[in-house]
Amino acid sequence: MARIAVDAMGGDFAPRAPIAGALHALSALGPDHHIELVGQTAVIEAELDGLLREEFASVAHVRDRLTIVEAPEVVDMTDKPSAALRRKPNSSMVIGIKRVAEGQAHAFVSAGNTGAQMAASLVLLKLHTGLTRPAIGTIFPTARQPILVLDVGANVDCAPEELVQFARIGTVYAQALLDRSNPAVGLLSIGEEPEKGNLAVKEAHQRLLHAGINFLGNVEGRDLPKGVCDRGPIDVVVCDGFTGNILLKFYESIGPMLIGMVSKVAGLDAREVAGSLKELDVDEYGGAPLLGVRGVSIISHGKSSPKAIKNAIHVALRAHESGMTEQIGRRLAESMPATTGSGITT
Amino acid sequence: MARIAVDAMGGDFAPRAPIAGALHALSALGPDHHIELVGQTAVIEAELDGLLREEFASVAHVRDRLTIVEAPEVVDMTDKPSAALRRKPNSSMVIGIKRVAEGQAHAFVSAGNTGAQMAASLVLLKLHTGLTRPAIGTIFPTARQPILVLDVGANVDCAPEELVQFARIGTVYAQALLDRSNPAVGLLSIGEEPEKGNLAVKEAHQRLLHAGINFLGNVEGRDLPKGVCDRGPIDVVVCDGFTGNILLKFYESIGPMLIGMVSKVAGLDAREVAGSLKELDVDEYGGAPLLGVRGVSIISHGKSSPKAIKNAIHVALRAHESGMTEQIGRRLAESMPATTGSGITT
Repeated sequence: MARIAVDAMGGDFAPRAPIAGALHALSALGPDHHIELVGQTAVIEAELDGLLREEFASVAHVRDRLTIVEAPEVVDMTDKPSAALRRKPNSSMVIGIKRVAEGQAHAFVSAGNTGAQMAASLVLLKLHTGLTRPAIGTIFPTARQPILVLDVGANVDCAPEELVQFARIGTVYAQALLDRSNPAVGLLSIGEEPEKGNLAVKEAHQRLLHAGINFLGNVEGRDLPKGVCDRGPIDVVVCDGFTGNILLKFYESIGPMLIGMVSKVAGLDAREVAGSLKELDVDEYGGAPLLGVRGVSIISHGKSSPKAIKNAIHVALRAHESGMTEQIGRRLAESMPATTGSGITT
Repeated sequence: MARIAVDAMGGDFAPRAPIAGALHALSALGPDHHIELVGQTAVIEAELDGLLREEFASVAHVRDRLTIVEAPEVVDMTDKPSAALRRKPNSSMVIGIKRVAEGQAHAFVSAGNTGAQMAASLVLLKLHTGLTRPAIGTIFPTARQPILVLDVGANVDCAPEELVQFARIGTVYAQALLDRSNPAVGLLSIGEEPEKGNLAVKEAHQRLLHAGINFLGNVEGRDLPKGVCDRGPIDVVVCDGFTGNILLKFYESIGPMLIGMVSKVAGLDAREVAGSLKELDVDEYGGAPLLGVRGVSIISHGKSSPKAIKNAIHVALRAHESGMTEQIGRRLAESMPATTGSGITT
């Protein structure tokens, strides 16, 4: 049994996309699961009524497992994260995350302002002990199996130790959400030799050798689309949020461009071709948990479709049921230096 | 009239690819142009004889415009750059670059060890005044026009001022080799706002506003495949060599992967599809000048085909004829702070 809070006001296609996504999810989930739509009640009710009369008429019974949680304010995409948190305490974003922080919901899903979601999650859910920053992990489709890349934007300048933390967090994620038994972690760099890379990466490489994780060594840009490097298949790729964010946006943009070009040459309909390439569909994963906070906060793309939201709700459910957050906390605690009774850190 | 030195021993497919590439180039170039094949004379002669008897029998007259320059040693792909330079002073790499340094050849082209080529070019050709490091610029095909991305691997940790230098160098390159009249330069970052990015990028952004170049502001990963950002078409993208190298290798790998996947779905031959997408053909540009040194040294991919070498020779010729090197020197000199007679820098 799980109870997922969904930001009904967040994202470019809100409120329709998150509400339709919630209805899709409820139709597919067992009767024990419940969804809370957080936002302006009147707006949500109007949209919900329309959807239940038309597109979702055949599954109107799922309405019983939907609750509306009133939140009069809305965080805009252009709001500054810290200001949004301070000036809009009654926004769907803040109230939704509070539901998780206070134990009323098991997870929160939003396609709204990512910076605001990060800030609110940090303040309300708090970081696990030993972490200085959270990370955003995203799934990259590859020619082989999907891989988790982190960080893709929460941290622009990363210390070596933060890259090591990402490796630990990513290992737990890949076990809990991607079913990888002993996840292989690669460090993104510009050559496979340990001495290749910028200063932070070279130092992180040395620390990762002794971090108790299944460390593959450095991986290169060319290995990501293949999902494999010379030392074997990759499950997790660790990088700073500057490189990761540029790579993610490049990937999201070049896929449609290449599909369009090839389809044109082949005289095919690009949308049909894209539809056949399910493994490249970014909606398949729908959302990425903000990693490192004490609670499940799923970040979805601003352009999320109902299908993407539905899948993000599944990710939320899986993160909750697998106990991913608790496992990350345990893993980080194990890796921290023991403190003696005298207060001296050994 | 130009005289181009080609490293006959460099690259995964040497000596055949560079020699065949030179023959292709001579067949297409006017009678004033001359090529020097630098390497082990006996090896080059044997390969050349074979090619002129068979594939190039119909253009055997171009042999008159080919000279062999003996270089008994060969730099391997695995040689450390500085060691290669010190221990193999009679390698095709070192002797070829010396031909340019001493004014006997107008340009040098190699598909060999990139690190060794950079090191030898730095030592023998020397940097323009005001530069601390050279940069490697590469052409990225886009949905619109090709764009120059630099640096893609010569510098892993870049100071803000180095990013500004890349913008200046890139501007000259785009004018001289890509025929852009007032090249628009974007700074690669994770958001278009000036405050987005890592520390070096944020500082570089401020300096670029006053650098006397056509600065577009920040561009994002998603803008590169499109060749355009919200403020207009992009000609040059500036980034540190760590990010640039990862992005370049990612691009080189994901193109074939996506073409393969789409071709499979469409029931087409991936090689035929790739052949039709001329704008995505990395061989089209063949090589990139090492930017910032006082002479033309063209870096080609280790996997260069004869066609890639032929095109790299064209790039070399164009770089020489356009006076690109001299223009870069002039541009850098203009941008340097004036020094007064008293020795006080203003």
